[in-house]
Amino acid sequence: MLKFQGFTIPRTLEEAVSPDNTALLIYDMQVGITRQVANAGEIIDRVRLILESARRIGMRTFFTRHMSLPKNLMGAFQFRTALAWQRADSPDKVQPMFLRDSPAFQIIPELQPLPSEGIFDKISMSAFSGTPLEMALRDCGIRSFIIAGIALEIGIDPTCRHGADLGLMPVLIQDACGFGNSQAAAHSLASLTHMGDTLLTDTKTICDLLARFATIAT
Amino acid sequence: MLKFQGFTIPRTLEEAVSPDNTALLIYDMQVGITRQVANAGEIIDRVRLILESARRIGMRTFFTRHMSLPKNLMGAFQFRTALAWQRADSPDKVQPMFLRDSPAFQIIPELQPLPSEGIFDKISMSAFSGTPLEMALRDCGIRSFIIAGIALEIGIDPTCRHGADLGLMPVLIQDACGFGNSQAAAHSLASLTHMGDTLLTDTKTICDLLARFATIAT
Amino acid sequence: MLKFQGFTIPRTLEEAVSPDNTALLIYDMQVGITRQVANAGEIIDRVRLILESARRIGMRTFFTRHMSLPKNLMGAFQFRTALAWQRADSPDKVQPMFLRDSPAFQIIPELQPLPSEGIFDKISMSAFSGTPLEMALRDCGIRSFIIAGIALEIGIDPTCRHGADLGLMPVLIQDACGFGNSQAAAHSLASLTHMGDTLLTDTKTICDLLARFATIAT
Amino acid sequence: MLKFQGFTIPRTLEEAVSPDNTALLIYDMQVGITRQVANAGEIIDRVRLILESARRIGMRTFFTRHMSLPKNLMGAFQFRTALAWQRADSPDKVQPMFLRDSPAFQIIPELQPLPSEGIFDKISMSAFSGTPLEMALRDCGIRSFIIAGIALEIGIDPTCRHGADLGLMPVLIQDACGFGNSQAAAHSLASLTHMGDTLLTDTKTICDLLARFATIAT
Repeated sequence: MLKFQGFTIPRTLEEAVSPDNTALLIYDMQVGITRQVANAGEIIDRVRLILESARRIGMRTFFTRHMSLPKNLMGAFQFRTALAWQRADSPDKVQPMFLRDSPAFQIIPELQPLPSEGIFDKISMSAFSGTPLEMALRDCGIRSFIIAGIALEIGIDPTCRHGADLGLMPVLIQDACGFGNSQAAAHSLASLTHMGDTLLTDTKTICDLLARFATIAT
Repeated sequence: MLKFQGFTIPRTLEEAVSPDNTALLIYDMQVGITRQVANAGEIIDRVRLILESARRIGMRTFFTRHMSLPKNLMGAFQFRTALAWQRADSPDKVQPMFLRDSPAFQIIPELQPLPSEGIFDKISMSAFSGTPLEMALRDCGIRSFIIAGIALEIGIDPTCRHGADLGLMPVLIQDACGFGNSQAAAHSLASLTHMGDTLLTDTKTICDLLARFATIAT
Repeated sequence: MLKFQGFTIPRTLEEAVSPDNTALLIYDMQVGITRQVANAGEIIDRVRLILESARRIGMRTFFTRHMSLPKNLMGAFQFRTALAWQRADSPDKVQPMFLRDSPAFQIIPELQPLPSEGIFDKISMSAFSGTPLEMALRDCGIRSFIIAGIALEIGIDPTCRHGADLGLMPVLIQDACGFGNSQAAAHSLASLTHMGDTLLTDTKTICDLLARFATIAT
Repeated sequence: MLKFQGFTIPRTLEEAVSPDNTALLIYDMQVGITRQVANAGEIIDRVRLILESARRIGMRTFFTRHMSLPKNLMGAFQFRTALAWQRADSPDKVQPMFLRDSPAFQIIPELQPLPSEGIFDKISMSAFSGTPLEMALRDCGIRSFIIAGIALEIGIDPTCRHGADLGLMPVLIQDACGFGNSQAAAHSLASLTHMGDTLLTDTKTICDLLARFATIAT
């Protein structure tokens, strides 16, 4: 790997991913979100394969959950977004969809976090806005994160951009990211590819790569 | 109130506090924290008085909870702090005290949040570090926050400084803030007073002030 | 405008833009950046029209400048990005392009900021990462920002997403945003349109809208 | 040094400071600030000793500058603070003291930064609020920072607390930090000592420690 001024500069997938310096981030795989996505079953299967691969080598793993605030704590921008998403014409008709402790808010049973895995709640799109995620990753010496979940074009895209802005390298598992709109998802992938900060790969490649560390550890 | 360039500049307690532009922030009143404080009973009683006053006028209310990460997600700084606080000589002996879903992590029954109140978890001292608190307050047009809870010299002090740095005016309820070390708490109060950004008051004064808005609303 | 719980919820361009609650943000119109863009002349002309419209009504205006760190302060991710952008094969060959006080770093003479306008330097893409921009906007009661400059697909796109995540409504002036790659710019516009948080408009529309406030003020 | 889960946990000064993982942060040593402090001469001399020691071993060095916004970009909280500090009774009488490019804003000639050193401007107290400092430190693998400058009780105290909250270990050089009010400075030191996250030391000790790395490098 390229070395300079006392640190290494990872460029390829093999250089960017390691059990000590990479975390797995599973994005918003919640009951109320997976049920909105057409091919959720496939996405769940692939995310589970990645999760199992990460668990086998003890890779640090974090889950995000999208959280709605109770209606009287929603402000102007939150209402504006909710009105648009719920196609409502009045704030009276807006329903907070992911209230803490509601069934829709829960992570799906197929991907239940272990006690050794972190769960961070967020009220915005980027997993780095208003969460302790950067703090936690930095303290463990993490420099890159594998990301999979739902939805690519809504929350995973800005999480990758924000992570890159903070100097944390995103590794996006393309076929393990669900989306609501295929054209918008394609635009996101094209745009992230053009930016060049995010490494794009697929479930099989990342699972094979993680498996190699298992072999080494044995 | 002083007006300039299209906005108002609050300076006194009466100008700074209003049902629309002020939130109540109840800091870390958790089972595992209150039991460490000598006069917790008094603090709980006063925080409850303030909470009831806020509820009576529908003031937006948020609770923070201190959250420990599972041990394998703790990093170097988290271990360093835990070693010092737990007077441990080895990371093996460190116990995460406030794991999500553990009894110590829960907010005490006397102050149980309503569904209309927000709860934000944090892994650091300032309630504005790694939480959506600023985002939520800003979106509702909040400009000042009443703060009470435990511990004054540990987490409430940096929360007031951080809030002031962000331009959100702290209103600290001195006799409703518990502490672990009385001398350290006195240093914090002296230091915040010297800085001048934080308004210091007591339970009776703030409850009387909030009660006035109730009368107006009737 | 829609009102609820004591605040207004802007949805259209007319509702979102006002002299008191909107700022103009001119993004990275620096010597070293404009010279990389094919149709920079047109972009400069349009940004100047918008700037003049904002100045006429005293709208708060901020400029960003992209700043390179000296080479020995660049870290692994900064080097990785520089290697890719400069198509260099070794850190030795990387040249920091926008060092403070270098000619390339300066805002172009055509758009010289007035003493009454703010300038914030940044080392990342989002104008909200590592700058006091949010703090400054919030303190003035700003709720939306008009954004124009270069480059749409690189820095303006993540600035709009990040602003929306923070609850500040982006108003993107499509024909006053330059780009390096037209296809990537098109993907960004499509993706922002799909997200729905960013209002897209053009130079003529925004200048006409701002001019209306001038008439009112007279 | 203590090792655990693949990383080291520094606890003593010797363990916390190293040329690769520590940066020097010189806080607000500006013309308009040093002239407000009684014993500025001594503080300047000591900061210069530390700066020279850091330069000798090539330690990464950053300067902060406090920046005032032009008056029409100041908001409610900025005015409130300025009214208090300048003992003014009306916003009309407030004078922004540290406008970009004003003489008061400049770093004093005795401590002129080299081109290889970073300069970050800020509008708040913590050097980590609204600056790229965390981003820059993290990207270089920095884990602790030596801090000296003015004023201890105003800006250096919250910078240490905020740094600790982010997991970056502060090393405060007590006799190289100027203050406006000696009692307030003493409260800050007592409070930081009680918190335990900040390592407190003096100019001679840190210069001797840095000198040891020079010997090793030879």
